[in-house]
Amino acid sequence: MYIHAVSHYLPTQVVGNEHFTQLNGLSNEWIIERTGIAERRKAAPGENTNTMSVEAVARLQEQADLSDVDLIVGATYTPHDTIATLAHVVQHHLGIADIPVVSISSACSSLLNAIEIVEGYFALNKAKRALVVVSEHNTAYNNDQDKVSGHLWGDGASALLITKERQTEGDFEVLSLLTGGAAHTGKATEAVVLKPLEQGVIMPNGRDVFINACTYMPKASQQALERCGLTIDQVDYVLPHQANLRISRNVMNTLGLPEEKLLSNIQRLGNTGCAGCAIALSENWSMFQPGQHIVVTVFGGGYSYGAMVIRK
Amino acid sequence: MYIHAVSHYLPTQVVGNEHFTQLNGLSNEWIIERTGIAERRKAAPGENTNTMSVEAVARLQEQADLSDVDLIVGATYTPHDTIATLAHVVQHHLGIADIPVVSISSACSSLLNAIEIVEGYFALNKAKRALVVVSEHNTAYNNDQDKVSGHLWGDGASALLITKERQTEGDFEVLSLLTGGAAHTGKATEAVVLKPLEQGVIMPNGRDVFINACTYMPKASQQALERCGLTIDQVDYVLPHQANLRISRNVMNTLGLPEEKLLSNIQRLGNTGCAGCAIALSENWSMFQPGQHIVVTVFGGGYSYGAMVIRK
Repeated sequence: MYIHAVSHYLPTQVVGNEHFTQLNGLSNEWIIERTGIAERRKAAPGENTNTMSVEAVARLQEQADLSDVDLIVGATYTPHDTIATLAHVVQHHLGIADIPVVSISSACSSLLNAIEIVEGYFALNKAKRALVVVSEHNTAYNNDQDKVSGHLWGDGASALLITKERQTEGDFEVLSLLTGGAAHTGKATEAVVLKPLEQGVIMPNGRDVFINACTYMPKASQQALERCGLTIDQVDYVLPHQANLRISRNVMNTLGLPEEKLLSNIQRLGNTGCAGCAIALSENWSMFQPGQHIVVTVFGGGYSYGAMVIRK
Repeated sequence: MYIHAVSHYLPTQVVGNEHFTQLNGLSNEWIIERTGIAERRKAAPGENTNTMSVEAVARLQEQADLSDVDLIVGATYTPHDTIATLAHVVQHHLGIADIPVVSISSACSSLLNAIEIVEGYFALNKAKRALVVVSEHNTAYNNDQDKVSGHLWGDGASALLITKERQTEGDFEVLSLLTGGAAHTGKATEAVVLKPLEQGVIMPNGRDVFINACTYMPKASQQALERCGLTIDQVDYVLPHQANLRISRNVMNTLGLPEEKLLSNIQRLGNTGCAGCAIALSENWSMFQPGQHIVVTVFGGGYSYGAMVIRK
């Protein structure tokens, strides 16, 4: 399985920390110290997870031929429409008939769940060119006035063309991929929630999320490396879920890797949910060198997690 | 791949057509003639897709050992929580650590998308005992006063234990399974929608849904039969998506099958979304005889569809 191309879309409006200083009295320094976030993007009126998905796919079409895509897996926990989902809207945009189309949520971990679902379709010979689209419209469900987590969230989308066979030398090969759930643990089902009919996205147990994210991302990364026979010193970059720069640094520390190997966009984009890692992959695509290994690792609400090792 | 056991949960409150007569002036006879629906269930305050999922799984535990479930795929388009999804809450209920957990939506078609995702995990050898849980809380997102579609919807949930290897002689073998999307067609992305932040579930183009449902369910059924080398006369029962009795009858007519072979619960339950077919499978489980073939076929908003042939 190969990642042949990746694109991303970001809304143009930038929201700096001063917005939350005015609203909630949180200083720029306090927000940066606690989260690493300096600014985030906010979708314009009329934009949503579906429109941002189509924008990301339109950019992917500039890089790759999508006319023979035979599977679409969308992902979001901030849906614009749960029936005409982002995957369906992308199919509509591409005009491709009679292919499997589904949208998923495993919260912030969904990127890797989506790629694992693609892996299954490839194993079944039911697909060989799959489009994965991750999109979050956090600001639609967020309460800016929430002093606990209102300042964390940003909007954005990304699209990846994943193929069963190698297309070009520049493709990333997926060497190993695992996903898991840790919903059995204490506060997993209540620490981060988004109840569309109630109060939107809230994080009543940030400390519990922090501890579990710092536990599961390194653990999953090590498991994924073991499964493909690699050691930690062969890792060139780690791309963790973009939830909080302190979590990312903690993950690097636990893995025994220097901060130079950390890929991060949370400073500019905030927590863009399941889209964060894919956007970062897109932003850094041309920097990666042949032979380099990247570990993508995710953790999300409901306490789902995953790790993927890819080699350029 | 085998369906080893299935259960269902229905809320206790029954809503008869007289509710909509009082509210919207729609007579009992008019509703029955147009939809086949005489009554539907409504979740109690405090119930939602997550709690109904756990109830369905608790009933499945009375039939089967779920302690070694190694994959959970949930499905709903009426989510209570898009982060701590129904699949996560079920994992929490079962207390099983470190297994893949994901919730999906392909609207009313999700049951078959979920089973196809399971099929992929089986092919990858990443799972061998999977739990599929389908749950809809339509009444949470429905406007009873909507004269067009307010009277269609009901609540309910179902859980299925799907295994890679046969467990007992009573298992249903999955002979073929396909899913597809038809979002490329005209009104696919606008005919049925559920925008959580806007007006809930509405169906502004019921006629277009009707026509496409009546086209795609027979077509997918025939494709699924061909793929496993069966002919239409070998079909003992057809279980179509429970959207409208007139659609179901139309599907039987197109397939050239008599109405005795139609399985239906819409009369008592209304449209229970992606849970409808699974609930019907559970309700009729003990009626099926060894060697019988059943075609399950679905169609949903976003214009997704699918068909599955199973043999007892």
